[in-house]
Amino acid sequence: MERNFLLKIEYDGSGFSGWQRQPEVRTVQGELEAALSQVMGKPVQIHGTSRTDAGVHALGQQASFSGEFGIPTERIAQAVNNRLAGKGGGIGKIGRVGDVRILSVCEMPAEFHARFSSLGKRYRYLIGNSPETDIFRRKYCYQVQEPLDEAAMQKAAEFLVGTHDFACFQASGSTPRETTVRTIYSLTVNRQGQDIVLEVTGDGFLYNMVRIITGTLVEVGLGRRRPEEMTGILESCDRQKAGHTAPPEGLYLAEVFFDEDAVRSAREEGMDCRDKEKKR
Amino acid sequence: MERNFLLKIEYDGSGFSGWQRQPEVRTVQGELEAALSQVMGKPVQIHGTSRTDAGVHALGQQASFSGEFGIPTERIAQAVNNRLAGKGGGIGKIGRVGDVRILSVCEMPAEFHARFSSLGKRYRYLIGNSPETDIFRRKYCYQVQEPLDEAAMQKAAEFLVGTHDFACFQASGSTPRETTVRTIYSLTVNRQGQDIVLEVTGDGFLYNMVRIITGTLVEVGLGRRRPEEMTGILESCDRQKAGHTAPPEGLYLAEVFFDEDAVRSAREEGMDCRDKEKKR
Repeated sequence: MERNFLLKIEYDGSGFSGWQRQPEVRTVQGELEAALSQVMGKPVQIHGTSRTDAGVHALGQQASFSGEFGIPTERIAQAVNNRLAGKGGGIGKIGRVGDVRILSVCEMPAEFHARFSSLGKRYRYLIGNSPETDIFRRKYCYQVQEPLDEAAMQKAAEFLVGTHDFACFQASGSTPRETTVRTIYSLTVNRQGQDIVLEVTGDGFLYNMVRIITGTLVEVGLGRRRPEEMTGILESCDRQKAGHTAPPEGLYLAEVFFDEDAVRSAREEGMDCRDKEKKR
Repeated sequence: MERNFLLKIEYDGSGFSGWQRQPEVRTVQGELEAALSQVMGKPVQIHGTSRTDAGVHALGQQASFSGEFGIPTERIAQAVNNRLAGKGGGIGKIGRVGDVRILSVCEMPAEFHARFSSLGKRYRYLIGNSPETDIFRRKYCYQVQEPLDEAAMQKAAEFLVGTHDFACFQASGSTPRETTVRTIYSLTVNRQGQDIVLEVTGDGFLYNMVRIITGTLVEVGLGRRRPEEMTGILESCDRQKAGHTAPPEGLYLAEVFFDEDAVRSAREEGMDCRDKEKKR
């Protein structure tokens, strides 16, 4: 009997050429499919909710796959993770930590698909805003040394919440889509010491949308743009009017929503989303 | 006129095949020499205090080089660092952070040599001791999921302080040295939340000595060895009696001492060494 599985996955994107399987290069999908195929005993193809770019991280990517498999659901994660973990240099299993791992596996109804069933996503963008750069964090945040005014950034962010045509925040040259209208349920900018954490929840995101929004908000934070300019930028539908594309290293796919209740609750409690994930 | 320079350097070792220049692979010495040669206008060879292994980091490596150069001392660091920094994805210079950089440059007397003039070094070893591994820290600490008893580790560490034959803590197959006697001025083990930080200051270290000491102390922390066993291990002069070699990812070359006063003060204030470097 055909079974359908949903994986929740985290990865450090710094060692990958992005999510999507490609010949000759190391990708998250490629590594996962190789390990899964070994564990399941036959070739497995997975469908990820988000095809994250090279260097982008995930705390809660999701992916589904189906087929006829005998293995009990609860054994999959451990078996795959053992294959994904590096050799490490410690004793026994100590110190073996890979750069991608499965957090959970659920068995889903046949019609479920990680991409097409997704109702929304939450991304986090981490900015290091210290006068000194930190070489050890260069793959994990966008380091802006000049002080950023996070209140101005938050003010600008509020103009973007709601249903808008976000064409101006789409990378130029993107594959044309049916529509560039998307809904942002919440977009918050918070300072945590010398870090600025941007959290954005929406029903879907155009190519590079979070990174261009972040780059634009950084320019507001630096005083190069006023928060009120966001309305004009949105209305222009012109990529040239928005700010620069923030680098991939600061971007984390934090959460995927499949359930309408979860989306509603994320919408209502948008401001508290970040508290749910104390981990990072 | 020949000038002699001393560089203080930090690097994230995760992208390097160690310090020492080698053909075909990316090394810290190789990258620094390439950038320095461009800036100085002629080939430069540097001498590092410590030839750190692949994956090992440095907060305060030092290296010297000499030659006839016209450039003012104070311009060197910035010019080299600009070449070493990655392109980044931000605007202008924002977001450009490399994985190696010069922290300071001093002009020294002609007879000074970063390796031969060194009187001691301080290493830090970082252990992540959380029940959950963190994929984002796998290149930056040794992740031990079972709880470690840091008090037992500290007790064991105290047996190693002083002048001893550390042959048992030298990697087997190391190039023979004149003597395997070294002096450890201080060796502390401290818990900082879910991290355990080991700091060791000594006049010199055998090959893999800090990593084998750490591996042995981890085994004490896990309850597999008693602190009192350290005396017998030392006296055996037998690598087989000591514990496993902790992985390179947790090791940081923290500080190099050239000055007798600095060594004396490190010795006297051994317990407080870690407070001097609040940064990490």
